Formats: sequence, C-alpha cells, structure tokens
Amino acid sequence: MANDKTQGAKAVRRPRAETPKGFRDYFGAEVTARKAMLDKIAEVYHRYGFDPLETSAVETVEALGKFLPDVDRPNEGVFGWQDEDADWLALRYDLTAPLARVAAQYRNDLPSPYRRFAMGPVWRNEKPGPGRFRQFYQCDADTVGSASVAADAEICAMLSDALEAVGIERGDYVIKVNNRKVLNGVLELAAPLPSFPEGDNLRGTIEAVWDEFKRNGVLRTIDKFDKIGPAGVLELLTEGRLDQSGARIDGVGLGKPVAEEIIAFMTARGSDNRVTLANLRALIGKSEVGMEGIDELEQIINLLETQGYGPDRIVIDPSVVRGLGYYTGPVYEAELTFEILDEKGRKRSFGSVAGGGRYDDLVKRFTGQAVPATGVSIGVDRLLAALAAKGRLAGDTAGPVVVTVMDRDRMADYMGMVGELRSAGIRAEVYLGNPKNFGNQLKYADKRQSPIAIIQGGNEASSGVVILKDLILGAKIAQSATLEEWKDQPAQVEVPRGDLVAAVRKMLGE
Amino acid sequence: MANDKTQGAKAVRRPRAETPKGFRDYFGAEVTARKAMLDKIAEVYHRYGFDPLETSAVETVEALGKFLPDVDRPNEGVFGWQDEDADWLALRYDLTAPLARVAAQYRNDLPSPYRRFAMGPVWRNEKPGPGRFRQFYQCDADTVGSASVAADAEICAMLSDALEAVGIERGDYVIKVNNRKVLNGVLELAAPLPSFPEGDNLRGTIEAVWDEFKRNGVLRTIDKFDKIGPAGVLELLTEGRLDQSGARIDGVGLGKPVAEEIIAFMTARGSDNRVTLANLRALIGKSEVGMEGIDELEQIINLLETQGYGPDRIVIDPSVVRGLGYYTGPVYEAELTFEILDEKGRKRSFGSVAGGGRYDDLVKRFTGQAVPATGVSIGVDRLLAALAAKGRLAGDTAGPVVVTVMDRDRMADYMGMVGELRSAGIRAEVYLGNPKNFGNQLKYADKRQSPIAIIQGGNEASSGVVILKDLILGAKIAQSATLEEWKDQPAQVEVPRGDLVAAVRKMLGE
Repeated sequence: MANDKTQGAKAVRRPRAETPKGFRDYFGAEVTARKAMLDKIAEVYHRYGFDPLETSAVETVEALGKFLPDVDRPNEGVFGWQDEDADWLALRYDLTAPLARVAAQYRNDLPSPYRRFAMGPVWRNEKPGPGRFRQFYQCDADTVGSASVAADAEICAMLSDALEAVGIERGDYVIKVNNRKVLNGVLELAAPLPSFPEGDNLRGTIEAVWDEFKRNGVLRTIDKFDKIGPAGVLELLTEGRLDQSGARIDGVGLGKPVAEEIIAFMTARGSDNRVTLANLRALIGKSEVGMEGIDELEQIINLLETQGYGPDRIVIDPSVVRGLGYYTGPVYEAELTFEILDEKGRKRSFGSVAGGGRYDDLVKRFTGQAVPATGVSIGVDRLLAALAAKGRLAGDTAGPVVVTVMDRDRMADYMGMVGELRSAGIRAEVYLGNPKNFGNQLKYADKRQSPIAIIQGGNEASSGVVILKDLILGAKIAQSATLEEWKDQPAQVEVPRGDLVAAVRKMLGE
Repeated sequence: MANDKTQGAKAVRRPRAETPKGFRDYFGAEVTARKAMLDKIAEVYHRYGFDPLETSAVETVEALGKFLPDVDRPNEGVFGWQDEDADWLALRYDLTAPLARVAAQYRNDLPSPYRRFAMGPVWRNEKPGPGRFRQFYQCDADTVGSASVAADAEICAMLSDALEAVGIERGDYVIKVNNRKVLNGVLELAAPLPSFPEGDNLRGTIEAVWDEFKRNGVLRTIDKFDKIGPAGVLELLTEGRLDQSGARIDGVGLGKPVAEEIIAFMTARGSDNRVTLANLRALIGKSEVGMEGIDELEQIINLLETQGYGPDRIVIDPSVVRGLGYYTGPVYEAELTFEILDEKGRKRSFGSVAGGGRYDDLVKRFTGQAVPATGVSIGVDRLLAALAAKGRLAGDTAGPVVVTVMDRDRMADYMGMVGELRSAGIRAEVYLGNPKNFGNQLKYADKRQSPIAIIQGGNEASSGVVILKDLILGAKIAQSATLEEWKDQPAQVEVPRGDLVAAVRKMLGE
C-alpha cells in the first residue's frame, strides 16, 4: 500500500502562504479598535441625519472614470479586469466615485439633498511602501444637492463632533477652513502674463491656457508651502530656485508682484478669524469671485459660532491649500495639534487626519447636470495612529478566561464551567488542544493574554473545588519577585466549584 | 464666449451610471440592519474566545487554490487579474481559503488552537440571477488546530447562542448534527461492486476507483434526498429513474441491499437522540470508522447537554447530507423551523441558515501537514430574510427631525435649533435644499421618514415660538380623516423656542 501511494504521488510544488504584495491581514485588537472608532463616527453621522450607503467593491471602469481610450488596459492606479461580456470592471479606488454613480443612478429616488456616509476598504494599484498598502479604509460623509454654505458648515461641525466622539479632546485639534474662490480671486487680480499676446480673437485660447497654467503651475507650487515656506514658494512662483543638491528647479514664471500677492493670500491668517477675513478683504476685495469666497467663509464661521463651534475649533487658514486644485468652493482640514515624536525622535505636530471640501461637478459626467456637493474623508489609519499616540485606542484586547484540561475524560465538566462563565457574560474558553502537556496549556493562556486560568485536577474535582490562577498578577510577580516569594503563589486561589463565576468576577475586578 | 464654448465642446458619450451586472447597492436601513445583526453575532463569538480576523479582499490565485495550470486564466468562478509582476491575483470567493492561508503563514505565531471569526464580503464570478449576487456577505467562525469533538460541540453551542442573540427564539430553530464517518461506515460495509475484478495487485486501484465512485455518485445522489425523498434516492442509487418529463436518469448502479442500507442510514433519525444513536449502531456497528463516527456524535450530544443544550436545540439527523462530500467528520446545520409562505403562497419551513463541519486538511496544501479544523458559516442574507419574516429586523429606520427653512437669511437660527437637538442626542437636520418652495421641504421630510418637522416663520420668530408638526400622526390622519377634521391640524403644536428640545422629546414619545 505504502509503495502504491509513493508511486502515485506527484512532486507538487506547494503554494506559498503569503498575502499578496502590498496587502496585509488585521488580527484581533487591530480589527476591534478600528471597528470601535468607526462605530463612534457612524453614530455622530447618523445623529446628523446622514444615512449609510454601501456600494459594492466592484464598479465598471466606465463609471469610475478611469478608462483611457488610447490604452488597452484601464488607467494604472486601479485594479481592473475584463468581464466575460467585454466590460472592464475595477475595484473602487475611493468612496466618492461610487457616490457619484449612485447619485446619478438613483437621482429620481433619493431625497435631495442626499446626506450619506460610507465606510469601507478601497484599493489602489500602486507601488506599496512601508506603511502604504494597496487596500485601506476610507470613511466619508457627503451632502449631495445642496449649494448652501450651511452644508459646508454642517460638515465642519460634524467632523469636530466625530473627532471628540472617538477621543480627540477639544484643544487637541482644529478644523482649518479655506476657500478655492479666494484663491481664484487672487489669480483673477493677477495681470495676464506679459509673454501672452493680447487680442480679442485669441482671448478664449489665452484664458484656457492661463487657466491650465494656474492649475498646473500655481496649485502645484503652493501645495509645497508646508515644506518650503513662503520664501521657497515665492522663488518657485517666479524664476525658480536651487534645491538642496544645488540642482535648478524651474519657476512658474510669474511676475514678482503677482507671486507676492499669492504669498500674501496664503499668509493672511490673522490673530483671529475676523482679522483673517479683514486681511483677505484688503487683499482681494476688488475681485468678485474673491469677495464671494470671503463672504462664504464669513457665513461658515457665523453659522458655526451660532452653534458654539468657536475659534478654538474652527479657524480660517488660507495656507490650507491641499486639494484647492480639486475643490470648487470651501475646503476644510482637520489637524491634530498635539506633538508626537517622529522617526528621528524630533517633536512635530501630528498633522492632518481628515480633509474635504465642495466639488460641484459630482454627477455631471453621468447626467450633464452639475449637482453641488460637499463632503469630508477621514483618514482612518491616521486617526487610529493618533488615538494610539494619545493612548485612547479602544478595542477589547482582554483575552478570555482559559479553563485548562487536566483530565481528558472530564471534558464535559470543563465545558460546563466555560458555559457558566459565558452565560454570565464572561469571555471564556476551554483549552481544545492536546491536553497532555500542562505547560503548553499555560503557554497558550499566556499567548491569548488570558487574565485567569482555571484548573481542576482529580483531587480538586473530588473535593468539589477549582483553582483560579491570576495570570496578570502572576506575570507581575514573576517580573519582580525573588524565587522565594514566587513559591508562595499568592496569585492563586482555591474556591468551591459553585463559586466559580463569583470568584472569577472578583479576580477580574468586576 | 458662448460660441467659443460650443465650438470647443466635443460630442462625448456619457458614462452609464449603473452598478455592474450582478452587483447591488445597500441603502440606509439595509446597511444598519445587517450591521446590527453582525454586531450581535460578533459579541457572541467574542464571548466564546474567538478573535476577529480581517484579511484583504485580494489573494494570490495560488493561495486561493483556484489556478488551473492548463488554462491561461484562473478558474472561472473567481474574479482574477494578472498583476504587473505576472502574479495572478483574485478576489476571495469565501472566508475559508484566506483562513487556510493565514493559518499556514502565521503558524508559528498564532495561538494553537486558533479560534477566529471573520465577517465580510466575498465575490463569485458566476451568472447572476434573481436574488443571486456576485458580491455577498459571509460570517464564519472556525477553530483551527483542535482534533477534539469538544471543538465541534462548541461551534454548535455558539451557533445556537448566536441565533438567539439576533432574535431567533428557542423553538424556532434546531441545530442538526451528522457525521461523515457514519456515512463512510455505511459505504465500508457495502460489498464491493460485482463488476469490479478482485485481485491483490489491483486492490489499491479498485479502492481508489470505488472511493471516487462513492464521492461522485453516492454523495451527489444523497444530496437530492430533500427533493426526491427516500424512494427517489433508492432508485437513483440503483438502476435510475424517470424524471417528471419522462426522461431516464441513470442510476449509480449499486445493488439494492447496499442502496437500502444507505437509505436506512439517512432515515435513521429516531424519536430522540438516544434512539437515533441506537439505530445507527444497529446499522453500522460492525464498521470501525462508522462506530467512531457514532461515538463522536454521542460525545457531542453529551457535551452539549451538560451545558444545557438539549434535544430541543440539538438533534442528530443522518439526513443532513449537505456538505458530507467536503467535510471529514461532524457536520452541522442550523435550520429554522417556522413556516413562511413561498412565492406561490404555499407554507413551507424556512430551512437552513447556517452550516459547517470538520475539515481536517485546512493548511495541508501549504505546509504538507494536516491541521484539524472545524467551523461554521452563517448565511448572512438568509438570516436577515428570516429576521425580516419574523418582524425582528433591527436597524434604525427612524428618519431625522427636519428643521424647515422659512427664511433663508435666518439659516443660523435654524442651524442653532438643529445643533440643540443633536446635542440632546436627537437625530436632526436642517433642510439644505433650495427653501423657496415650502411644499418641497415637507415632501423631503416625508421621503426622509421624518417624525417631526420644525417650522419657524417670521411671525413665530418675533413671538419667540416654533411649530412642531407631527408627521407620523399627520400621515395617519391624512389616511383616515375627512377634510374637515384635517383642517383642525391637531398634529401640530406651537411651543416657546426655549422648549424646543423638550417638546420634540415629548412628541417622539421619549
């Protein structure tokens, strides 16, 4: 027989037991901590009248808008494949694209405005790096179909409440608000570039080029404000600058007065929101769109103050430029202000954990009609890291009480104990491995971070008692005490079998 | 300008706003009802010492084990694509394959036995049908690394607790238990087929053929027991039968005595578990593996009875054959016993909502070592449907209190009201659409299933009052009352502005 089997066996290469590159697994407390955080955020969103929406992970590439007609495969950045009926499908890369599809698909059925929140994984087909994964969670809330700044103000208030709900204390965060329209006002006031020929018939073209130029040059440059500061941005907006290695980086080529006006906008934050608004008015009061933006900022601040969200939480900050290229109106960013140590041991402010703004073309791709929308996305992993840094991470890491097996034939007794504990709401389990080696059972309990091991051998059974071993106290004693002290085993008690649940409760400190 | 734009515009085909075929979106209460159910199940699993595990949606096809070397693409049934570095990746089609990979990958770090639960979507690249989707939820719990039947018993107890936790009352369900080894015993006792040549040197081959035969023929046939009953199965195990259209279906070709023994096994359920065990012993007491299976069943029953899980909940039922081909030991199935009306209005028992069993080759593909495992999978959508049928569906469907906007310039006042309500824990929102048409605001409130609309026009504001409109009572009156009665508007009250929160609470019946 053995011979037969050997002959029959083929040399098969075994599959590798590996997560695909850039993906990871989440165990125990990692799952519960994230869930606890998202549950608290969902509660706030729900109270604000937002409804959950769960779309599937898979969308048509057409709906995602990532299809490039001149290449065979969909755009890089998404995981895509061709369906049997030739449709390209792909995993969603964010939660906004599916919302756009839903808002268009169900536009006759959804309430308008439509407040929705969504939480779930998204996928990016990008080069993975340390701490950068190809699947990660997003947590979004958006209001679709409202042009009112009250919708933007509401998102800011909700974001503030959500941060406090998960355990970021007031004073440890600030919601910074800015407005794309104010930047547009700055750019409008800037004179056309001298190298552009003037002429009525070329005006449209020039405007288009200038518009493109603004988008690509100015926005990309001011996005570096945090890194290189006002002086660096000024150089890059004009003639360029030398980087740290001495290499020349080309500038955008703006005139110095224009560039200075942009810098003045970005550094217009005053001692309080009223001062900031006055600074902005002085800078760009002559631009219609600029004034519109300033008025919107003022309305947002007023609406929030009425509800008690004062300048300790809501700050107009024109240096918030992240996403100004994407958004069309107010933008907002939640920044955590407490300090942490970076990888080099230097103190730095924790930074941004959420951002969003107004984008008014959400469903236009599908329907041709512009629908105003505003929303926020919380960086789930960043916020979890912040909570960990503050020691505020929720999630039950307590292991179960472990009932050990001294006598294999009395498994029913041990399961009876575990059943009683569970019925009393106590997390508990019986050891289900091979019970022969008792040391292995205690090692198992240790690995499970078990607070208590229950022991009942034959002697204990016939005396009608059980032994409770306090593993947390035991570990402490083992760390600190001498062998002599350890011998007394004070972390162990013997109680009548009938008192099991009460004794466990007592040892757990309940 | 308008002309310029027209000239510049290209005739672009707009993308379709559609979910891909076989996928669907979940809105509001659909999301919260499922979440509430899964949260309750997770609480039970946690109390039993099971830890959550969340793997990513994407696995290598190699790890999933769906790769067919002779075809260019991975096996049908999964959504797969080729990564840049030539690896085939795919969406997981269940939660067991990722568990197998995890159990192999982290075998040196995980506690052993490893109890884990997992909840999340899985994907099947199959033809979608009515109610059959290509993404759906699974909810699994497994114990890896325990050969003890105590692990099987524990899963049955946990399944029972989970059903009761979500709202299936005792008496409305039964956990049926069977054992593959008992079926193996039946097959062992069945004489070799007469058409097989006897001979020592052919014995291995014959055994392999007979084994394959058992698997494919017998298992496939007895799987139809529920549909065609014992007489039909007897025909199919022997010479075959005529189906409803009169077409001949070939039989497996067993002799009648053997087939009758298999039927006897499947119908061996007695008036209680002890009788069933006695029936099984009488049938296959001579088979070693059969007796082993019967002993295991008895142990499971005993272990469960010790913990109070009696025959009202746990029933040995040899007619449970679903999955007997896949599992290697005990199998279990949760069946809901209450009746519902099917699509033709006929009463029928609700049927199975969960199933599982022991499968002892979980990680062998990866490591070469057999690791015993046992686990259960709850059919999330089936169980949700059952709860809906029983009117026990959780999930908050209450809409928010809607503060209407009578005067656009007093948005701050309205947001102040909504802020107060939210701070008091009441779900509330201000109307954020265009406030011009007040009728639209009430239609919106209706669509949102809002219980109360708050109204404050200029008159009310100057008198310092607000109007509360009870929309639930209003709807009832509108359905039943005459126009005269409706004119009195008894579902509407005017209260001082300062009493807003208290008055809303009262109207909500809190």
